[in-house]
Amino acid sequence: MKHTPQKLVSRLENKHVHIIGAGLLGASLGLALRAKNCQVTLADISPTALALAVDYGAGSVLDSNQQPDLIVVATPPEHTAVTIASALEQFPHAIVTDIASVKLQILEQLVAQGVNIDRYVGSHPMAGREKSGAIMARADLFVGRPWVICRDQHTAAAALQLVEAVALEVGAVPTEWNPADHDQAVAAVSHTPQVVASVLAAQLAQIRSEYLELAGGGLRDTTRIAASDPALWIQILEANSAAVARLLASVGNDLLEFTTALQDTTAPGAKTKIAKLLAAGNAGVARLPGKHGSAQKFAALQVIIADTPGQLAQLFSDLDQLRVNLEDIRLEHSPGAPIGFVEISVLPEVSETAAAGLAAKGWRVL
Amino acid sequence: MKHTPQKLVSRLENKHVHIIGAGLLGASLGLALRAKNCQVTLADISPTALALAVDYGAGSVLDSNQQPDLIVVATPPEHTAVTIASALEQFPHAIVTDIASVKLQILEQLVAQGVNIDRYVGSHPMAGREKSGAIMARADLFVGRPWVICRDQHTAAAALQLVEAVALEVGAVPTEWNPADHDQAVAAVSHTPQVVASVLAAQLAQIRSEYLELAGGGLRDTTRIAASDPALWIQILEANSAAVARLLASVGNDLLEFTTALQDTTAPGAKTKIAKLLAAGNAGVARLPGKHGSAQKFAALQVIIADTPGQLAQLFSDLDQLRVNLEDIRLEHSPGAPIGFVEISVLPEVSETAAAGLAAKGWRVL
Repeated sequence: MKHTPQKLVSRLENKHVHIIGAGLLGASLGLALRAKNCQVTLADISPTALALAVDYGAGSVLDSNQQPDLIVVATPPEHTAVTIASALEQFPHAIVTDIASVKLQILEQLVAQGVNIDRYVGSHPMAGREKSGAIMARADLFVGRPWVICRDQHTAAAALQLVEAVALEVGAVPTEWNPADHDQAVAAVSHTPQVVASVLAAQLAQIRSEYLELAGGGLRDTTRIAASDPALWIQILEANSAAVARLLASVGNDLLEFTTALQDTTAPGAKTKIAKLLAAGNAGVARLPGKHGSAQKFAALQVIIADTPGQLAQLFSDLDQLRVNLEDIRLEHSPGAPIGFVEISVLPEVSETAAAGLAAKGWRVL
Repeated sequence: MKHTPQKLVSRLENKHVHIIGAGLLGASLGLALRAKNCQVTLADISPTALALAVDYGAGSVLDSNQQPDLIVVATPPEHTAVTIASALEQFPHAIVTDIASVKLQILEQLVAQGVNIDRYVGSHPMAGREKSGAIMARADLFVGRPWVICRDQHTAAAALQLVEAVALEVGAVPTEWNPADHDQAVAAVSHTPQVVASVLAAQLAQIRSEYLELAGGGLRDTTRIAASDPALWIQILEANSAAVARLLASVGNDLLEFTTALQDTTAPGAKTKIAKLLAAGNAGVARLPGKHGSAQKFAALQVIIADTPGQLAQLFSDLDQLRVNLEDIRLEHSPGAPIGFVEISVLPEVSETAAAGLAAKGWRVL
């Protein structure tokens, strides 16, 4: 289960971090650590990728006589376990971590191969971009993101503390989980929604283009993440296949039950089935955390804006003057209309004041 | 199929519009038409709801000697057809429309009952709020929204023109469809995503609350519309059950196929199946229209903001100075972090300039 880690004061000064895999995440970590004056070296199976990341300032090439304190394996998921094993062998005094988005399979692969994992701790910074490669790397990539660190009874305190120090150093928020819980959690909150969005979006590939002109914000929201990279997602899904398959089967079966109920709504229990699933959806979405991880619910105000420069700046300036703190923003353009809507989410208790204040400043609030 | 209607110059002055059903949509339409000095009367099966809408200024009660020019049936979907039939009988010289979100079943019910539909034209303003009732009504509700008007070979030109005039009067964008195409379109772009979001969100009702702390923007996006009212959605789904059931079955079966492939990714064809469905999701989401109904693709920039007043106003002011036109905005708060991210979507050709300009003004752009 998850534990809240103590805030550590340890710093990485004088520590040497070696990153294997100079893609988006590896190079971003290198940039972030270099920005804090840490010693960073890099390796990659592709000499071109390595040279690019070095040119980019993410670190230098490892000298054969160097002994890094921490190895970060940042390869694609399918190469992670074997890379960890060889790093543990190659650097017999170093702590080794990885940052793959699935954790249990990697641990099991290491154990099955008889690898001594005393110096290994798995981790998963919940950060990324739609684009990949070192050229897309940014030192800010991890700022404010949860960085899952996997602890179990075998995890050495020194390994845990070193990885937590790295997470803190690059601005992430370390959070301790065991690997099984982590994988179940990301199966539910990330991997299953990804597949459902992809399969839903796949239906859109086949319908008449005219139909899409009636699409609104609901469809855009439900399918947005379907734009992600299939090559990466195949590896992630494969590495967490049992947990994802169980949840996907549940979603698929629920949809087919819903379909059956819809095909004959006069059948006994059909309407109850539909009502129960829709109500369960209400209950599920109500559990999602809001700002800063709280389960706080927000009130939404829709503000009509003209599709001209200055409108948004004026709106947010007015909201500042009204001392309204925004929890969320959504912008919606209406097909064929010279105006748009901004949906702003605020704490329920300030909703009426905010609406009245905006109206007094001349905004049309729905 | 869809037709682009001619922009009409006809106004509703001297026309009397009678709205049956004084809920959110009926009362909003009344408010919007009253704001344009149209004559509006209201009816509702609930005297309390009617009195509330009248008090709210959405219209007056119909006198028995009045002969409205247009009847708008704004009842819940399950009462729509019978209300249209009785309105056609009660007002033998009026045009009758309805604004239910499903169109073919209503038309078929009227035809099956031998109702003469020469004076009937179905319509569907694509507007709504999460909240219901006259008390939530707003005159601006239809501004900039598509207003589907159903035309077939029987539709009288006068009926069509009068409903188009109403749509234009309240600021909506009229668009002509035949009922079958409309229902297929909304099944694909609205009803099926609604059920999929509900069923996906329903899984969240059962998982450990700790797991939800790793939830990010992807999960929030894919489940947001699952918060909608089950009572209304049962009626909508029932009235469009055949089209929705077919699409839902397709999504459900695709998910189960995906599940099977995931359960044994070493089976022949399993990885190909997974890759093809993920790629089809890419293709589907790429077809969604962007701003103003275009299929233009946008580039996304992530800007880091402090969680303090003034940051958003400053950001949008800076974007205005840089003459960057925003296509979309998303705000993301990171659990436990005192900062957030604003993702702004811009035309690809201005993406680099915008990023450089923001960086020059001191913003951290990912």
